[in-house]
Amino acid sequence: MGTPERIAAVAEKVLATRDQGNSVVVVVSAMSGETNRLLALADEITDKPVPREIDVLLSTGEQVTIALLSMALEKRGCAARSYTGGQVHIRTDSVHNKARIREIEDKRLHADLAAGRVVVVAGFQGVDEEGNITTLGRGGSDTTAVALAAALKADECQIYTDVDGVYTTDPRVVPEARRLDRITFEEMLEMASLGSKVLQIRSVGFAGRYNVPLRVLSSFEEGEGTLITYEDEEMEQALISGIAFNRDEAKLTILGVPDTPGVAYQLLGPVADANIEVDMIVQNIAPDGATTDFTFTVHRNEYNRALEILTQTANELGAREVSGDDKIVKVSLVGVGMRSHAGIASTMFKTLAQEGVNIRMISTSEIKISVVVDEKYLELAVRSLHDAFDLAQPPKI
Amino acid sequence: MGTPERIAAVAEKVLATRDQGNSVVVVVSAMSGETNRLLALADEITDKPVPREIDVLLSTGEQVTIALLSMALEKRGCAARSYTGGQVHIRTDSVHNKARIREIEDKRLHADLAAGRVVVVAGFQGVDEEGNITTLGRGGSDTTAVALAAALKADECQIYTDVDGVYTTDPRVVPEARRLDRITFEEMLEMASLGSKVLQIRSVGFAGRYNVPLRVLSSFEEGEGTLITYEDEEMEQALISGIAFNRDEAKLTILGVPDTPGVAYQLLGPVADANIEVDMIVQNIAPDGATTDFTFTVHRNEYNRALEILTQTANELGAREVSGDDKIVKVSLVGVGMRSHAGIASTMFKTLAQEGVNIRMISTSEIKISVVVDEKYLELAVRSLHDAFDLAQPPKI
Repeated sequence: MGTPERIAAVAEKVLATRDQGNSVVVVVSAMSGETNRLLALADEITDKPVPREIDVLLSTGEQVTIALLSMALEKRGCAARSYTGGQVHIRTDSVHNKARIREIEDKRLHADLAAGRVVVVAGFQGVDEEGNITTLGRGGSDTTAVALAAALKADECQIYTDVDGVYTTDPRVVPEARRLDRITFEEMLEMASLGSKVLQIRSVGFAGRYNVPLRVLSSFEEGEGTLITYEDEEMEQALISGIAFNRDEAKLTILGVPDTPGVAYQLLGPVADANIEVDMIVQNIAPDGATTDFTFTVHRNEYNRALEILTQTANELGAREVSGDDKIVKVSLVGVGMRSHAGIASTMFKTLAQEGVNIRMISTSEIKISVVVDEKYLELAVRSLHDAFDLAQPPKI
Repeated sequence: MGTPERIAAVAEKVLATRDQGNSVVVVVSAMSGETNRLLALADEITDKPVPREIDVLLSTGEQVTIALLSMALEKRGCAARSYTGGQVHIRTDSVHNKARIREIEDKRLHADLAAGRVVVVAGFQGVDEEGNITTLGRGGSDTTAVALAAALKADECQIYTDVDGVYTTDPRVVPEARRLDRITFEEMLEMASLGSKVLQIRSVGFAGRYNVPLRVLSSFEEGEGTLITYEDEEMEQALISGIAFNRDEAKLTILGVPDTPGVAYQLLGPVADANIEVDMIVQNIAPDGATTDFTFTVHRNEYNRALEILTQTANELGAREVSGDDKIVKVSLVGVGMRSHAGIASTMFKTLAQEGVNIRMISTSEIKISVVVDEKYLELAVRSLHDAFDLAQPPKI
C-alpha cells in the first residue's frame, strides 16, 4: 500500500476478483513511509521505547489503510467492512514486536462474507490473551493473510508484491530468467532462505504448514504470478526450479582440531552462545587421521566476531590454525525434481569447472545443492548454471 | 496534545500529580493537525466517506498519542499502560461520528491502578455492542475523561485547555476579568451555552449528571485553574459569578399577530421545521389588546432564512409587520447567588441606563439574566456590568 492512488488501484483489483464470483478478504499493510513516520515520533520521545507501546503506535498504520480501502470500495458500490487485528480476534502470544499468531476467530468474517461484503483486515497486528495489541514483526502482513486464508479455508491466498512472481533466478543477474508458473512450498522455502527476497520465509512456512495455496502477484502489473502449492502430478516436471544465491556470506575454517567426540559442539557452542547464526557446516577428517578440519559459514556482518570467538576456541582446543574469508558467496540449485533424478550434482560441478569457477564448499539437501565460490565468480556461476539446466525454457511436460 | 514536546510536558504534569500520591488515569486527544491530516487522506479517496470507516480512520489519532505518552512516562521511570477505547470497553451506541457513551468496564483499569501504573486512555472513541469502532464527535475527549472519572469514582477530573481557568468574563473585553476558583455546574452550563468556549457543554452536563468535580487547567502554565462542582456551603458567596456574551445573535419581530391560542406554535413551528434553533423568545400583548407582538433571536447565520420563513408565516396569519435586526448581541449575568438575592436585575438595568445602553430584549432564568443590546454597545455593557458588580475582586466570605 503506497498512497491514496495506490489504494484506489487495490480497490479495483479487489472488485475484479469479487466480480469473478469470489468471496474476498483483503489484508493490508501500512502506507509506505507510515511506519517510519511513526517510529520517528517515538524517537523524539525516547530512545528506548517500551515494546508494548511500539505495537500500539505502529498498529495505527494498518488501521488507517483498512479505513481508506473500505471507503474506496464503498465509493465503487462494493459493500465493505474494515477490521483491526483485535476486532477479528487475531490472537497471538504476548511477545511484543514479533508476536506469533495462535488462533483466529472467523465467525464475524463468515457473517460478513455471507452478507456479500468484502472484508478488509489490518495485517501485521493482533491481540494477546489479555487484549493487548501486538505486532507480528517483519513480513507480518503476509503472515496475517496466510493465517486468515487458513482459518477461512480459502481457495487461494494472493500476495501482492513489487515483483510479478518467482523467477528461476534474479533477472538482474540473468536477463533470460523466467517467471515460474508454479513452485512447491519446499522449493520456495529453499529459494527464500537462500536469498530470494520475494516473500518472507515465515509466511511461506506458515502457508505450507496449513496447506494454503499462495500466489505471488505484482501490485502494479497484470499477470498470473507464481502459484506456490504442494507437489502434485500435474505439476511441471522440472529437474531444477531455480537458482538462488546469497552474497552476504563469510566462511571460517579451523584446521587440525584433535578429533574427539563432541568436537563440533565445542567449536560451534561458543558461536551459538554469541547469537551468531551458522549456515553451512562441513567437517573432514584431516590427512593425518587424528585431527579434523572444520569449515562453516556465517552472515558477513558477523564475520569478525565469529573469527574472534573461533580463534579463542582454537587456542583452548590446541587446534593448528584458524583462517577465514569474507569474500565468498553461496549459489544453490533448488528443485524437487532432484529427488528422482541422479546426475544433477555432477552436471553442476562440470559446468562450474568448465568456466574455471573453483568450488570452496559443497552442501546438499534433498531438494538443493549449494556451493560456496569466490565472490567475483557469482554472476558467471549463476549464468552458466541457468544456461546448463536450460532454465530459460519452460519444462516439457 | 500538540507535538512530541507537548507530550513530554504532559508526562511531567502526570508525574507531578502521581507524586502527590494520586492514582492517575490520563485521557488524551490526537496531536494537533492529525485529525485534519487523516480527513485529507479520506478526501483523496472519496467525497462521501462511510461514517463507520471515518471512525476507524480518526480513532488512530488518539491511539498514536496514547502510545507516545506512555513511552514518555516509562522513559521517566513511571510504569504506564495505554488503552484504546475498545480495549477498556468504552461502550457506546452505534451512531458513528457522534456516538454517546453507554457504559465503561473499569475492571482492567482498577487492576492497573492497584499495581501502581498510570493508565493512558484514548479519548473521543469507543466501541458499540458489536465491537465496531465509534467516535464521540466534538469535545469527545473531554466526555471520555468525565465518563471515566465517573466510572472510577475519581476525586476530580482535570481538563487541560489553552486557558488557565474560567473567568468572570472574556479578558479580551475586560482586562480586569478575574479567574474564578470555583463555579457551579449550573453556572458553567449557562456560561458555556452563552458563548464562553472553555469547555464543551456536553462534557459539563455529563460531569454534572454524574457529580464528577471538574477542574479546568492550562496545559501551558502552572496554576490551580477553576473547579466546577455542585454548590456547597463553603463556596464563595458571590451574587454573580460571571458575565457571558454572545456576538452571533440576530433578532426577528412580528407585530400585530391576531392573538389566538397556538399562535406561538404557528409562528415558531415553520422555523423549527427548517432546523433553525431559536434562543430567546419574548411575547407581549399589543396595545390594542387583540393582537400580540412576538420577538425571538436566532444565530446570525440563520437570520436571512428565518426572516424569509417568518415573512411568509406573517402573510398567512394576517400579521401587521415583520422586522428584524442582525446587529445585536446578548449579554448575560450568571450566578447561583441570584436565587437568594433580589435587586440584581434592577442594578443591571440601572447600570446600562447610566451608560446610555438601550435594552432591546430581556429574558431571565433562575440563575441568569440576559439582555439583548445593539452590537456597538457590547464592550461598554460588559465592562460597566463587570465594574458595577465588582467582579474583579474576589467575593468576601
